[in-house]
Amino acid sequence: MAGRYRSDPDLSDLILPFPGSEAQAAALADVLGADLGVLESRRFPDGETYVRLGSDVAGRRVLAVCSLAGPDEQFLRLVFAARAARELGAARVDLVAPYLAYMRQDMRFLPGEAVTSRHFAELVSREFDGLVTVDPHLHRHSSLDEIYAIPAVAARAAPLLAAWVAGNLERPLVVGPDAESEQWAAEVAALAGAPHVVLEKSRHGDRDVSIEVPDLAGWRDRQPVLIDDIVSSGQTVIEAAAGIVRQRLAPPVCLAVHALFDADVGRRLARATRAVVSTDTVPHPSNRIAVAPLLAEAVRSLPR
Amino acid sequence: MAGRYRSDPDLSDLILPFPGSEAQAAALADVLGADLGVLESRRFPDGETYVRLGSDVAGRRVLAVCSLAGPDEQFLRLVFAARAARELGAARVDLVAPYLAYMRQDMRFLPGEAVTSRHFAELVSREFDGLVTVDPHLHRHSSLDEIYAIPAVAARAAPLLAAWVAGNLERPLVVGPDAESEQWAAEVAALAGAPHVVLEKSRHGDRDVSIEVPDLAGWRDRQPVLIDDIVSSGQTVIEAAAGIVRQRLAPPVCLAVHALFDADVGRRLARATRAVVSTDTVPHPSNRIAVAPLLAEAVRSLPR
Repeated sequence: MAGRYRSDPDLSDLILPFPGSEAQAAALADVLGADLGVLESRRFPDGETYVRLGSDVAGRRVLAVCSLAGPDEQFLRLVFAARAARELGAARVDLVAPYLAYMRQDMRFLPGEAVTSRHFAELVSREFDGLVTVDPHLHRHSSLDEIYAIPAVAARAAPLLAAWVAGNLERPLVVGPDAESEQWAAEVAALAGAPHVVLEKSRHGDRDVSIEVPDLAGWRDRQPVLIDDIVSSGQTVIEAAAGIVRQRLAPPVCLAVHALFDADVGRRLARATRAVVSTDTVPHPSNRIAVAPLLAEAVRSLPR
Repeated sequence: MAGRYRSDPDLSDLILPFPGSEAQAAALADVLGADLGVLESRRFPDGETYVRLGSDVAGRRVLAVCSLAGPDEQFLRLVFAARAARELGAARVDLVAPYLAYMRQDMRFLPGEAVTSRHFAELVSREFDGLVTVDPHLHRHSSLDEIYAIPAVAARAAPLLAAWVAGNLERPLVVGPDAESEQWAAEVAALAGAPHVVLEKSRHGDRDVSIEVPDLAGWRDRQPVLIDDIVSSGQTVIEAAAGIVRQRLAPPVCLAVHALFDADVGRRLARATRAVVSTDTVPHPSNRIAVAPLLAEAVRSLPR
């Protein structure tokens, strides 16, 4: 929606924290040296959402900080807040979604399916002037620009993951769970000064995957660290960890960008791995790596 | 979105049932003599919604039947299904929402508030060609056309309520709980051949109301029947019932168009009233009055 831009580089930023992303919003405001605003929101007894901007937005750039795990319950709140901000004079409204939803249904696998990645991107593009996220799940779409009609910056967590591996593990072996993750595992490994291997995954359903592990006999003195962008059902990690342990390597550390798993999956992951560590793109007990500096850099690089 | 209309009166209808509205969709298909389609939908472990149209929509008018109690969890599903239907050749897509959400925040009561009735109407108007609902909560907006940019038909439940009163209660006294309900209570009373009175309500919060009851001494031989469009927190009904009983009338029957209350409120209502009866615009144990004939008539009156 470039027509709405003001190109005033002195536009002052107002960070608007959405429910669940309060800590991330505060951290981002801190790194950017920007004002932290107030979003008042609740649900009426009938399930409708109430939204009130508790800060003056006139003439400012509003940065809505809202992680999109559980996107359906956030979406209307985002739209209502963005529209209220515009009506009340915000110069522009950007979305900072540390985790971006609806990136996985990127084609019609079966007749009649809705291609939600395109629909969601189109909806978001109509409401916001720019988008910042971390490691969106790009697969058949090669970049956000294919589906988002607004400037979209995808910050990359690999350097943060590599720094965590280098700083916390002795003799690490970086393991990518599937072919898709190769490029990424290779990068983290290179930055961490560690070797890497890639497994082979076949998916048979939302919660049903099988993993083929190559011969790892030469790596028994290494601490495996499984790296994945999204951990959700946990099946990939659990299968991969079992395959690694069967080859008499130590149980792997699991390192995830987006921790979407619930407490029950967390318990099963705890049994299958040495530890689970994640970035804070989705608020979660496993969060150990803060992405606020990445988000700040991405926000600064948005055209304005 | 009139530009998308085909004016072919022979367009065949396909009813698409949304989760929670399966019975209503089947009843509507029955009354209209239309085909009942299949909508496959589930949530992924990370909270995203999967949508698949299980019926051929090419060249047909699709009627999405989706009651909007709990609108936030339905909204993206509606959008995804409507867009998939268009992509797959639907000639038009109408929304049949027996209960229509986001009609109550119709102005900015406090600075910074989002006026969600306008925002929601604008979103729906972009996705659908027409809208059918029953008794939307019109207050400051005098008709749906003020906020909906598409043809919108508001069916009126009053005749059904009146028929229920006339058929089920001896010597009824129709009671409207507040000034807003006067016109409506008067109509039900007239159609049922019963007298009516109106109470006075002051609202102090979502769940905090007070009711003033006029002198009802002359009506002690009557069965009071409290009529309201939406019963949600139940406070209005409970306060009104208490006021009526204090004047030594029988506990009222509560007759609601849209039963939005949960089981806990239901228990409190059961203690305060003789019975609670509702139409089936929102699926609920209190449903006794079927609106499918009303919906069918409204669907037939949509321009096509």
